[in-house]
Amino acid sequence: MIYLDNAATTQTDPEVLNAMIPYMREQYGNPGALYAFGREAKKAVENARFQVADFIGAEPDQIIFTSGGTESNNMVFFSLANYLKSQGKNHIITSAVEHDSVLKSVQAMCIKHGFYKSTAGVDKHGCVSPNQVKAQITENTGIVSVMYVNNETGSENDIESIARICREKNIMFHTDCVQAAGCCKLDVNKIGCDFLSLSSHKLHGTKGCGALFVRSKNLTPLIYGGVAQEFGLRGGTENVAAIVGFGKACELMKARIHEIDIQTSILKQVFYKELATALASKGLDSILNINGNLLIKHGKILNISLKGVDSETLLLMLDVKGVCVSSGSACRSHESEPSHVLIAMGVPPDIARNSIRISFSKYNTEDEIVKAAKIIADCVEVLYDGN
Amino acid sequence: MIYLDNAATTQTDPEVLNAMIPYMREQYGNPGALYAFGREAKKAVENARFQVADFIGAEPDQIIFTSGGTESNNMVFFSLANYLKSQGKNHIITSAVEHDSVLKSVQAMCIKHGFYKSTAGVDKHGCVSPNQVKAQITENTGIVSVMYVNNETGSENDIESIARICREKNIMFHTDCVQAAGCCKLDVNKIGCDFLSLSSHKLHGTKGCGALFVRSKNLTPLIYGGVAQEFGLRGGTENVAAIVGFGKACELMKARIHEIDIQTSILKQVFYKELATALASKGLDSILNINGNLLIKHGKILNISLKGVDSETLLLMLDVKGVCVSSGSACRSHESEPSHVLIAMGVPPDIARNSIRISFSKYNTEDEIVKAAKIIADCVEVLYDGN
Repeated sequence: MIYLDNAATTQTDPEVLNAMIPYMREQYGNPGALYAFGREAKKAVENARFQVADFIGAEPDQIIFTSGGTESNNMVFFSLANYLKSQGKNHIITSAVEHDSVLKSVQAMCIKHGFYKSTAGVDKHGCVSPNQVKAQITENTGIVSVMYVNNETGSENDIESIARICREKNIMFHTDCVQAAGCCKLDVNKIGCDFLSLSSHKLHGTKGCGALFVRSKNLTPLIYGGVAQEFGLRGGTENVAAIVGFGKACELMKARIHEIDIQTSILKQVFYKELATALASKGLDSILNINGNLLIKHGKILNISLKGVDSETLLLMLDVKGVCVSSGSACRSHESEPSHVLIAMGVPPDIARNSIRISFSKYNTEDEIVKAAKIIADCVEVLYDGN
Repeated sequence: MIYLDNAATTQTDPEVLNAMIPYMREQYGNPGALYAFGREAKKAVENARFQVADFIGAEPDQIIFTSGGTESNNMVFFSLANYLKSQGKNHIITSAVEHDSVLKSVQAMCIKHGFYKSTAGVDKHGCVSPNQVKAQITENTGIVSVMYVNNETGSENDIESIARICREKNIMFHTDCVQAAGCCKLDVNKIGCDFLSLSSHKLHGTKGCGALFVRSKNLTPLIYGGVAQEFGLRGGTENVAAIVGFGKACELMKARIHEIDIQTSILKQVFYKELATALASKGLDSILNINGNLLIKHGKILNISLKGVDSETLLLMLDVKGVCVSSGSACRSHESEPSHVLIAMGVPPDIARNSIRISFSKYNTEDEIVKAAKIIADCVEVLYDGN
């Protein structure tokens, strides 16, 4: 199997799993307990909190552990609802290419809590213009949410400029860094954000764990429970093993982020060149297009369209040959609608339906990438409908 | 170490861990993906859904996986808010001895969503009277939430009668069965509930996973995201490994529930007898009292008061001697207030502060129970303040 869907989820690093297993086997104490067996679990959670904080240049007490990036994104909005309303703010700005966990949360904030929203569009490369965000700000705007790296195209947004605009207007800024965390060095103070979402399983940790960076705590919980847990902001027994694994994943990623970024960027370039060459040898080079921008610095995601090739059929054919790629977000893979991200970029719906996402990780090798490119070209040749 | 805090969390069953590990190691596919590697993960989640459903006599499509019992309890209320309001219902009834995840959620429903609540008290054994619940019902009552087995005392409520009363009045009924699931056979149709909460780590699964049984789906999500996940009711990449472990834990528990119930009930009786005897030999038998009822059928939890012995000091002394017990809910262990459960039962605050919870599991042996009782009696003798 050649796994090229690292934007959907990543292989757990063996070091991460090794760090976790004791906390699922013998060290099963509840971190809320007073005895040493519980305090040891608590210490492990706090060590992980330090590792996650260090990964993004934050303080440990600014990290809230959640069940994943989706919960982190939801928490930002629902936890702020009361505070924003108390400040007379009922307007949210987001972008057209956000993940469903942001889009659907914002939609629910409008329906359930009386907020209204504006949506910043993107250019043909999938990037949000800071000026467009600025133009949408009103005196009622309470929060702006724009992701760093897009999960379908890898497109990067200038979140530092957007954060600066928000700061000047005294508006809170949230950035979904679930995908960025695998390829970009993150620093909450350099970015200047108030909230930042992370997910463990996108950076070689396990599923079921994430974090929300919270600069100031004008929040109510999304999930109520024990007030001693997560600074009173997130109830529920801490998912100790997964949290320990997340901490380790962050530590490992921080130590090698530059190297991994270079490795995956090179893999992406090599893959594209190999695919283009293989398609050209079949006289099919003209059907290949990039959705987004191959030249962007950071790189684990490549989104391409293959005009005249139905992407779902291609995916299933590749599956048989042992190559795992996707047509976009795993959360939307069973929907028939074309990608909202590609549509927002101005990609015509039929071309959007001819698009696939290939995403790389530190575990991919150049050999398998080259092989995958050839397999894809062969499948495309079979499926290409010239009419 | 003698671990007697199985109401806080339980040791993961090695069979559970063995079932999980492949999904953290090689089978790391995203269940939302279209290729076989993703479909295999999806199949594992669906198999676990069947196991959890089977454990409580439900249909698989009535099971929503969550991050734990606390999220399940929160989800009931917040996910119903819109529906209840649309039906002109804005009143919630719960009991005085519920877990914080219910009490705090209901409180937030009142503050954030304009609901009001009534709280049913309990008798000296910690039990809610169905008639008291009935008396609190108004034409605005939308939902009643009463737990089956209390997490601090092990007291059992007659939830079947409460469910029947609710059904007659066309009111929804939720029951928190997080503690009951380790010792009682559960059948959602026999109980007659609309919602039922479970947690994996209370029945030898791992932390970070739970489920909510949902009879009908008049719900909005608590956590928004991909609509293909959990019937559109809970976004976020499925926590595959933990879900697989939860399914296995339910399967194992179902197969041996009667046997485990007898085993833990006997351990409880033996422990109490040994402790009473050891204290009597020191002339201290008069300070021992049970909070709750030793004679209740099901058994893993025993709550006792030791008049004149500060429970926190006792816990720490026992910790040094390798015995893990608690003073109540792990979620509240760092609070200075006496247990709200004991206070609701009419236990005076100073006696509540002299109370400890001992809870058993299938992994406890009679030998260690006897040893623990002796150690506790010795510590009590040292700490007893006769004045």
